[in-house]
Amino acid sequence: MRKIIMMFAALALLAACNSNTPEGENWKVVDGMIEFDVPAAEAGQQDMLGFAAEPIDTVRVAFVGLGARGSGAVERYTYIDGVKIVALCDKYPEKVEEQQKVLADAGLPAAASYSGEDGWKEMFERDDIDLVYICTNWQMHVPMAIYAMEHGKHVACEVPIAYTVEDCWKLVNTSEKTRKHCMMLENCVYDFFEMTALNMAQQGLFGEVIHTEGAYIHNLEPFWDRYADNWRMEFNQANGGDVYPTHGFGPCCNVLNIHRGDKLDYLVSMSTPSYNGKARAEEKMGVDSYACGDHQVTLIMTEKGKCMEVQHNVYTPRPYNRMYQITGTEGFANKYPTQGITLRNKNISDAVRCGHESIDEHSFVPDDVFQAIMAEYQHPIHKEIGEVAKKVGGHGGMDFVMDYRLIYCLRHGYPLDEDVYDAAEWCCVGELSAVSEANGSMPVRVPDFTRGNWNKLDGLKFWHE
Amino acid sequence: MRKIIMMFAALALLAACNSNTPEGENWKVVDGMIEFDVPAAEAGQQDMLGFAAEPIDTVRVAFVGLGARGSGAVERYTYIDGVKIVALCDKYPEKVEEQQKVLADAGLPAAASYSGEDGWKEMFERDDIDLVYICTNWQMHVPMAIYAMEHGKHVACEVPIAYTVEDCWKLVNTSEKTRKHCMMLENCVYDFFEMTALNMAQQGLFGEVIHTEGAYIHNLEPFWDRYADNWRMEFNQANGGDVYPTHGFGPCCNVLNIHRGDKLDYLVSMSTPSYNGKARAEEKMGVDSYACGDHQVTLIMTEKGKCMEVQHNVYTPRPYNRMYQITGTEGFANKYPTQGITLRNKNISDAVRCGHESIDEHSFVPDDVFQAIMAEYQHPIHKEIGEVAKKVGGHGGMDFVMDYRLIYCLRHGYPLDEDVYDAAEWCCVGELSAVSEANGSMPVRVPDFTRGNWNKLDGLKFWHE
Repeated sequence: MRKIIMMFAALALLAACNSNTPEGENWKVVDGMIEFDVPAAEAGQQDMLGFAAEPIDTVRVAFVGLGARGSGAVERYTYIDGVKIVALCDKYPEKVEEQQKVLADAGLPAAASYSGEDGWKEMFERDDIDLVYICTNWQMHVPMAIYAMEHGKHVACEVPIAYTVEDCWKLVNTSEKTRKHCMMLENCVYDFFEMTALNMAQQGLFGEVIHTEGAYIHNLEPFWDRYADNWRMEFNQANGGDVYPTHGFGPCCNVLNIHRGDKLDYLVSMSTPSYNGKARAEEKMGVDSYACGDHQVTLIMTEKGKCMEVQHNVYTPRPYNRMYQITGTEGFANKYPTQGITLRNKNISDAVRCGHESIDEHSFVPDDVFQAIMAEYQHPIHKEIGEVAKKVGGHGGMDFVMDYRLIYCLRHGYPLDEDVYDAAEWCCVGELSAVSEANGSMPVRVPDFTRGNWNKLDGLKFWHE
Repeated sequence: MRKIIMMFAALALLAACNSNTPEGENWKVVDGMIEFDVPAAEAGQQDMLGFAAEPIDTVRVAFVGLGARGSGAVERYTYIDGVKIVALCDKYPEKVEEQQKVLADAGLPAAASYSGEDGWKEMFERDDIDLVYICTNWQMHVPMAIYAMEHGKHVACEVPIAYTVEDCWKLVNTSEKTRKHCMMLENCVYDFFEMTALNMAQQGLFGEVIHTEGAYIHNLEPFWDRYADNWRMEFNQANGGDVYPTHGFGPCCNVLNIHRGDKLDYLVSMSTPSYNGKARAEEKMGVDSYACGDHQVTLIMTEKGKCMEVQHNVYTPRPYNRMYQITGTEGFANKYPTQGITLRNKNISDAVRCGHESIDEHSFVPDDVFQAIMAEYQHPIHKEIGEVAKKVGGHGGMDFVMDYRLIYCLRHGYPLDEDVYDAAEWCCVGELSAVSEANGSMPVRVPDFTRGNWNKLDGLKFWHE
């Protein structure tokens, strides 16, 4: 009799259990939230929060990946003092020759040339390189960044530096073990409106910033044929979720001081099926599946209850849009489709009031006030280098500001503006959003890549003399 | 020995169970998704999909709630043919007298007057009323709508008609049992840009519409003192989630033919804490808690994989914004902060091309093309009544279009533009989003208020001779 009761008890428990709890290779569901495993740190492994390397008088740089982004980077570096371009590498030798010509035209000595499948390894093994600058296809970012750090080089790598949570941990652990910088080259952080809004936020003009929006909405239909060996379509065909989150998300994380007083807690994500992307891939790749949905949205909650939104759509006819929207208890900033600012009347200083008696708190400020605000709160870094940056160019100048800051901090021995934790936090949205979407938008915990030290730094600081 | 094995088996199962699965009074978690109980329908209860009542030559109307919205409604109805204003009711008799004066000024006979706590019941019990028009505080919408239908009246009720899933089911069941219309007065459905975009979508100009955005972002700081007995702040203080979703959400549901070929499947929701709302409530109500967060976002997935977003923020300084954004595989429409349209070059007819050889599919169309599109694709209903509506007014005319259509359909014996399922679907986002937020953004299944008949009607139709 007891046996029978026990059997019923066991069956009752079985019935009470959530019958279809999903589980992944490196994650499980805990109390209705997907949680990824956290790899153990090695004994003595220390965080890189606020890490500064010894000052480097002349930064010896090697570039790998000389396509659209890499060629632009080499050209910009010919305008930066305290830099020596030591070596150039691309899978295709003709790409290397093109950039040697750029150096020659700038009156600079030729750099060492590397090409082929494994040219980059040979280059990374040189002992006269301080910084490796990676602009290859996304698939090569992680292996190259890790190989470079393991061979004693600081790393600067194009976005997104990674996609999977596992790769994000590899970058963090390698940086912490080798004590080398690993900066992701998120250029939009340095764009003019974003930097001005960040400056205003840090001065408290928006009050408590409670909600942010960012996106990468850019119809790539004219560009799909420009990626060497079709690498970008192949990546998106194989991977779902927000495969390219950082341009919209990074600048918002900076405003909210992520891992500098707050941290990402969890996210939920939703995506449409692939319509246009799949159709194009069918023609171009002869496949009948496409993982990356045409329009995709992710909501992220922070430890302090701030809500962040990120969107991705590179497939449908729409105007270019990174959203970049900051909602605060005292004000509002919006970049797309039209730049606008809303502030409390009490926070409009005489310097920007332009004689208006009262400022409507239910509209964007008038044009004259907006222009005055953009001038008054221009970020010190833009005051210093903004005009030069606009002349040199690179997405309107922000790329040059980014390169300038990287070299400036390395030469002065300062912490970099963007650290390896930024890279991991901004990129892990890729796999995390894909897993949420594949499981009915189930919430997914965002890993704390600082392993509990997210509150050690007090706010974001761009170091400067 | 067997007993011990069984005990271990039972314990193992217990451990395997999700230890903290939440459960509500009328919902439980099934496979990681919150599902609300569905009340049983009564024997013989039939759906109201496509329901049309007998034509009414002169529609005898009674109004209850004569504050800001109700007084405007009475004034608009003095301009509509085939209507007799039979009775007026408000808790406060002076409000009734104000509207009697409006009738007199319009040369119309006086209506019967009702006031006090229960005046509305007495009014609803009259046998010479066809339609009850409800503009009271939100708290009274459901009891009044149900009492009216049970007393043989059709119902038109201000937004939101309900907040809880239980109340949504009550409205659906009462409408189905009494065979009376229950229309929610969602005026934004009839706004000019929305109706034109709907018309374009129904003509296929956006291709497959895959993503929509809507919102109610309106800084109510100057208005909180205008709600009789502080009803709106009291409602928001007690209720979380998106308490006011329909203005942004309704027009998007129309574009996606919700319960007319597609249906809402599940949602996830996120909200900031209450900052400004709580501070104002502390002053005004002396409370130290406030359920409605300052900024709130909900993502909704449809049966066919379309993604919808709705936001709510009535607390922070921002420009008014209902978002209203339609993303399709072939085009894009955006209303706030600036109206814009993007279309495939191939879909730009000569009638709207304005001589442009090529239209950029990566930008909004030029102003001249935009104006031509707005004229060419103006909705037939606006062609018919738009100019009169702008003269009569009511949020720029959309309120009059809504009233005109309601009376038009009742007089012709047509199905109404908005049925009781629209009311339930658009409003249930309130409690559903609150429950998702209270449970770490867990997905919540949206009830199918048609009980399986969501695919019976083929698309949205505004009936017309």
